[in-house]
Amino acid sequence: NNVKLFICLIFLHTFLHLLPATDGDTKTMTFLQEVVDILLAYIVESFDRETKVIDFHYPNELLQMNNWELQDEPATLDDILISCRATLKYAIKTAHPRYFNQLSTGLDMVGLAADWLTSTANTNMFTYEVAPVFVLLEYVTLKKMREIIGWTDGRGDGIFSPGGAISNMYAMLLARFKMFPEVKEKGMSSVPRLVAFTSEHSHFSIKKGAAALGIGTESVICIKADESGKLIPADLERRILEAKQKGFVPFFVSATAGTTVYGAFDPLIAISDICKKYNIWMHVDGAWGGSLLMSRRHRWKLDGVERANSVTWNPHKMMSVPLQCSALLVREEGLMQNCNQMHACYLFQQDKHYDLSYDTGDKALQCGRHVDIFKLWLMWRAKGTIGFEAQIDKCLELSEYLYNKIKDREGYEMVFDGKPQHTNVCFWYLPPGIRYMEDKEERKKHLHKVAPVIKARMMEYGTTMVSYQPQGDKVNFFRMVISNPAATFEDIDFLIEEIERLGQDL
Amino acid sequence: NNVKLFICLIFLHTFLHLLPATDGDTKTMTFLQEVVDILLAYIVESFDRETKVIDFHYPNELLQMNNWELQDEPATLDDILISCRATLKYAIKTAHPRYFNQLSTGLDMVGLAADWLTSTANTNMFTYEVAPVFVLLEYVTLKKMREIIGWTDGRGDGIFSPGGAISNMYAMLLARFKMFPEVKEKGMSSVPRLVAFTSEHSHFSIKKGAAALGIGTESVICIKADESGKLIPADLERRILEAKQKGFVPFFVSATAGTTVYGAFDPLIAISDICKKYNIWMHVDGAWGGSLLMSRRHRWKLDGVERANSVTWNPHKMMSVPLQCSALLVREEGLMQNCNQMHACYLFQQDKHYDLSYDTGDKALQCGRHVDIFKLWLMWRAKGTIGFEAQIDKCLELSEYLYNKIKDREGYEMVFDGKPQHTNVCFWYLPPGIRYMEDKEERKKHLHKVAPVIKARMMEYGTTMVSYQPQGDKVNFFRMVISNPAATFEDIDFLIEEIERLGQDL
Repeated sequence: NNVKLFICLIFLHTFLHLLPATDGDTKTMTFLQEVVDILLAYIVESFDRETKVIDFHYPNELLQMNNWELQDEPATLDDILISCRATLKYAIKTAHPRYFNQLSTGLDMVGLAADWLTSTANTNMFTYEVAPVFVLLEYVTLKKMREIIGWTDGRGDGIFSPGGAISNMYAMLLARFKMFPEVKEKGMSSVPRLVAFTSEHSHFSIKKGAAALGIGTESVICIKADESGKLIPADLERRILEAKQKGFVPFFVSATAGTTVYGAFDPLIAISDICKKYNIWMHVDGAWGGSLLMSRRHRWKLDGVERANSVTWNPHKMMSVPLQCSALLVREEGLMQNCNQMHACYLFQQDKHYDLSYDTGDKALQCGRHVDIFKLWLMWRAKGTIGFEAQIDKCLELSEYLYNKIKDREGYEMVFDGKPQHTNVCFWYLPPGIRYMEDKEERKKHLHKVAPVIKARMMEYGTTMVSYQPQGDKVNFFRMVISNPAATFEDIDFLIEEIERLGQDL
Repeated sequence: NNVKLFICLIFLHTFLHLLPATDGDTKTMTFLQEVVDILLAYIVESFDRETKVIDFHYPNELLQMNNWELQDEPATLDDILISCRATLKYAIKTAHPRYFNQLSTGLDMVGLAADWLTSTANTNMFTYEVAPVFVLLEYVTLKKMREIIGWTDGRGDGIFSPGGAISNMYAMLLARFKMFPEVKEKGMSSVPRLVAFTSEHSHFSIKKGAAALGIGTESVICIKADESGKLIPADLERRILEAKQKGFVPFFVSATAGTTVYGAFDPLIAISDICKKYNIWMHVDGAWGGSLLMSRRHRWKLDGVERANSVTWNPHKMMSVPLQCSALLVREEGLMQNCNQMHACYLFQQDKHYDLSYDTGDKALQCGRHVDIFKLWLMWRAKGTIGFEAQIDKCLELSEYLYNKIKDREGYEMVFDGKPQHTNVCFWYLPPGIRYMEDKEERKKHLHKVAPVIKARMMEYGTTMVSYQPQGDKVNFFRMVISNPAATFEDIDFLIEEIERLGQDL
């Protein structure tokens, strides 16, 4: 056995000669520097408009373009570098100034540096003991975010979670626990039939959360939205009353600040009045729109957010913090802890030598929790609040520019009237061939196919990327969003030219 | 407004002169290189036994040792570099050869490089469109892991989730949906009272999951474990029958492969026989012990895992993949999709131009999902399966060495008899002063305080870190675990010397 172990050790410590191998320092520094050189070249290339956003290949092609299989035997360091290059070659350049496909775009250099540091520190968020600085920075940052929401002295609670869907699920969990604390021990069979309310334009994570939490998707009641995608408060109240008449218990309203497709802001003040009247937890899903709180010019769109019981706010979207970075902010202190703690004594020892209030792990659903705080904190240091504000204001200016450019342009139809409230600009492009079609159904059928074809061509040319989708009875339309700080007026002009170039024959 | 925008742009693009600022390339390369130099120095230092594992300060001290507050105004790049240095100065050196505090320790150089690349690629896992390579690599790696579990041709399903607690929660969610698919729409009120079973030594995430899913912690029935921490199958069967007699519906058994404290492996074959007999979903929580499947010498400890319906396996623990990297593997294909999908048409368009089976996002609870796959995949390439095996075997040899060293040594008592099955070695150190105390209660009371004091001293000296906890009626004991590939026999010797040095006066 000792011989076998010896062979193992020799093998492990020599096949790559990297740390922790004895005298592995030099080899390690060289290797990591080679990787960094690859990354730096990729970064510079990503911002270059002459480069493709994507070198697209179909899945089966891509599977054959490199040897991606895992082997029993080790590879050489050269092979590792080749794998790194191949991976980046076929990656989407999410930093590219013409990448508009998602709500999260762009690549912030300070955020990236912070994420590299986070990986190097390689720790978990559960206790002060294993992440002293990160735990403090989470405390400082959450407090600041709560101040910005408008809660007195930044009081309250919160957590950085693995994305907006989980943040929303936390909110629903807290709302249920607040109303029926016995649900933690006794489950849903101990409580009456609960119902939640959210707009028909809200994010699918509300239903996903309800399914997971044992509430069921049928208990999520979809409230009508107006033409511009805002929840109609009168319909909310009507549906609450209707539910109560059926003997159901309304426990949760999720208002959306910045819907996924239209970028609409639900009227928070009116909603909060209703929530107060019927004693219902008010959640604001500001995953996309929450960042507008950083802008003196745009934060009025979230007026009333300070009345919410909980707020989801994803700095990885509009603030361009590297993925992932999502916060749930909670107005009531101590509730998260009571709702989620299980007192695992092997993790949260109560006889430690420091202030245990910093061991926040037990308020999470997770045990280990990824360090998502440092990139946000370091970017905030680098930009200051006013830097984030400028960045956000700029994206909104660009979307207004796009809106003004196409709203009366031939061949375009807006999906809803009026200036967008967020950076979402939703529109149809009508190729000349269908522009004057008289048969409305025929026209609709054709139009539905236009966006997917243009998008496929964009990806094949690799010049730009923008999202499209149908919504309700509206056929496929483009949803342009701007969260990429690298984008300029010229990139907006380019997008329109490109849509017309790729779509004129359709 | 245009003037304001102009000022914003000037401001944004010049205050740091980094990309995407025009001609920001050089400044960006210099800045990132400076950060990398800080990180490289930290890495080399982390592996140096002359360095402290931690430069410990109490929370209130640490808050005052640097300016951590967030400001309205931007900082300079120099200030950013200072913040990076300060953050690392007070961080735990998790790569340090004498850091034994958690199940996740060590820092793999290839894994780190891969994580830096992941941050640079800055994308999400939901669709092939936005993460073509990473989606394929997840597919390749999950298949390989399922082959290693022993499922025919690696068939089945799976996902990388934000940690073992969430992986376990997924398993419980799937088990419930499999038995009662209507629960997705109708919630828990549509199903009978469900009960889950797990050992009293299992991880607290099983109860946490049950609380979240609306099942309730009281419906998690804790099964007795034997002296060495293994679930007793006869007690499981007895409790299942008891629950059925009460009219409850047993739906989920979570066996543990590698318990958190003792490192015990539940007898999977016997448990699977019971699950089969009563038609209950069998989950194996192998967050900690699953990696032993990579070792020809140790994988017998998980015999029967191939009969499980689902398996949690965290490569970020025993395989030393950087945090976070947790997989849930599922035997039945298609179930995850059916259980979790919400068909959000704005994310998962059905008329895209490529094979949509690669758009796996809708089977997740999350919407955006962090890219956790690349570091595991690249490490696997670098080491090969045999490299992981050697690394794991070495850690187990080290723990056997520790066990042999202390089992008959004066001043030590083992918490349970026999050779540990995993790298967990649980023991009491008895300082000379209490070694011969006659009053058993008095001795116990004293002993309970020994580990916390030694641990606090370890942290203050910064020489090493190891965990301790009570368990049931057993007072505080040390739980040594070895997952750190940098550790050697000498480090084990050092740990024992250090415990004796710091504890002899107690």
